[in-house]
Amino acid sequence: MTTDAIDLLLVLDLIGVSVFAASGALLAMQRGFDLVGLLALGSVTALGGGVLRDLIINQGLPDAFSSPVPVITATSASLATVALRTTLHRWRRTFLVFDAAGLGLFSVTGAQIAVDAGLGTIPAALLGVLTATGGGVIRDVLGGEPPQIFRPDSRLYAIPAAIGASIMVIWSATNLPEEIGATTGAVLVFAIRVAALRFGWRAPSPGAQGK
Amino acid sequence: MTTDAIDLLLVLDLIGVSVFAASGALLAMQRGFDLVGLLALGSVTALGGGVLRDLIINQGLPDAFSSPVPVITATSASLATVALRTTLHRWRRTFLVFDAAGLGLFSVTGAQIAVDAGLGTIPAALLGVLTATGGGVIRDVLGGEPPQIFRPDSRLYAIPAAIGASIMVIWSATNLPEEIGATTGAVLVFAIRVAALRFGWRAPSPGAQGK
Amino acid sequence: MTTDAIDLLLVLDLIGVSVFAASGALLAMQRGFDLVGLLALGSVTALGGGVLRDLIINQGLPDAFSSPVPVITATSASLATVALRTTLHRWRRTFLVFDAAGLGLFSVTGAQIAVDAGLGTIPAALLGVLTATGGGVIRDVLGGEPPQIFRPDSRLYAIPAAIGASIMVIWSATNLPEEIGATTGAVLVFAIRVAALRFGWRAPSPGAQGK
Repeated sequence: MTTDAIDLLLVLDLIGVSVFAASGALLAMQRGFDLVGLLALGSVTALGGGVLRDLIINQGLPDAFSSPVPVITATSASLATVALRTTLHRWRRTFLVFDAAGLGLFSVTGAQIAVDAGLGTIPAALLGVLTATGGGVIRDVLGGEPPQIFRPDSRLYAIPAAIGASIMVIWSATNLPEEIGATTGAVLVFAIRVAALRFGWRAPSPGAQGK
Repeated sequence: MTTDAIDLLLVLDLIGVSVFAASGALLAMQRGFDLVGLLALGSVTALGGGVLRDLIINQGLPDAFSSPVPVITATSASLATVALRTTLHRWRRTFLVFDAAGLGLFSVTGAQIAVDAGLGTIPAALLGVLTATGGGVIRDVLGGEPPQIFRPDSRLYAIPAAIGASIMVIWSATNLPEEIGATTGAVLVFAIRVAALRFGWRAPSPGAQGK
Repeated sequence: MTTDAIDLLLVLDLIGVSVFAASGALLAMQRGFDLVGLLALGSVTALGGGVLRDLIINQGLPDAFSSPVPVITATSASLATVALRTTLHRWRRTFLVFDAAGLGLFSVTGAQIAVDAGLGTIPAALLGVLTATGGGVIRDVLGGEPPQIFRPDSRLYAIPAAIGASIMVIWSATNLPEEIGATTGAVLVFAIRVAALRFGWRAPSPGAQGK
């Protein structure tokens, strides 16, 4: 991997951290949490998926604890969300767009980090999905909501993440520049997720008929 | 440990993965989750206890991410549960029998893997119980149910797991063939759990009097 | 670190394990859990924060699984709570005082262990807070309560933990005896938390105005 690609991964990862922190902070405000609960929920949402990923690849300290940058980024983004709350008045929609951006960024960076750690194709793609969805699941469980990814009325969420992670895993087996694969993957995930929200795309529900 | 015993552990583990995946998929169908939520809940239930175990023993990658087999097994078992849903119409009872089989298999394999990793008697037995109950607790938390293991009206659940894990830990200190210990332990856990469900065996509740 | 300081850390840690186990056992009795659920909730509350800390610092086995002492301590403290339940009749208040003591002890020992593992100032302080609050969050999630740390009506909880963890991290960079830093930090956390409960100190809630 070139230094530029590493830098790009880092930048994408910190953007992902920021948007997921904002999604956690928005849920905390909806729930009337105090400032500390808001910072905690923002940070756990932002860093939880990546910590889960790093615990599983089991190589030294998780990124979130290796330097002060991720924590400071998550905290700053949570505070910025508070500062901007009067302009972010369409809570639910803003929340979902931020969440979609984080989904795209983390599925791609998670898959790439898993490949670099030596995981095979299927486990690496799965770990990308886990990185992208883990923080949000922790956020929803702690915020007392059924996880968005499991809700019967949810729109496509893990499917775009799986597509993005798979693109990244396959791309990284080629000699093509990783920046293009990462950007393509992340943008595609974001686009599919936002389109699914806009047009009401849903996965089939097997339970309904079976009862 | 002989190669045969390793093979047996692997086979038992994959059967455990399958039955826990089915228990997760059944809960997902009861809740009306879509197909993606069902695959996710099935996989997390099937692999969660083992990943927790492997994170704690801290030796390389968790089994669930070392090869594509566990993920494919969990996904296939979840899909098979969907396919068989019309014949599995006694949801609750089927769910509980599958769950009991997973409990028996994972308490024994979890304890054995903990012993092989060098844990002492009490921590190894505890890790067996955690392996066996962890996936189900995660399943219930994500499915929005109070964890089965904690419910006031629950029948014996962790107690059979603790008995099975302890048998395996003690057995592995002898020279007796491990296949017999593993099979005895797993069958005993399953039998106690099913009998507890059938005859309403419960652990004492200290809270009731104390209030 | 001197042997005495190590011994002190161990003793403080086991006191923290005991009081958190008691807080978990008390919640289990309030909820009418059976004895097994009570032992499980007591143990998970007592050991969960430390296991989370040890998974993150990623150095060998978690303390809770390296010897039988932590498990036996957590189990004994849970059983002692059951035995003393008729004298502990002011449930809620007792619960909160025990919880405050655990908060103080774990924020200090967690931060110290993080420093010894080579973490920087901010990550080490954060890990102290996570050690102190993690077990309680797991307790509340498994007990079906919104986590105490996030509740809108909660009193200062993570703030005293952050103060105690920061004192310990800064103190450990000096040559002053660690016993004094650890004791000062833990007592201060306990005092702030109890005062916050007594006088209703709260962190500001940004959400209320933003809606």
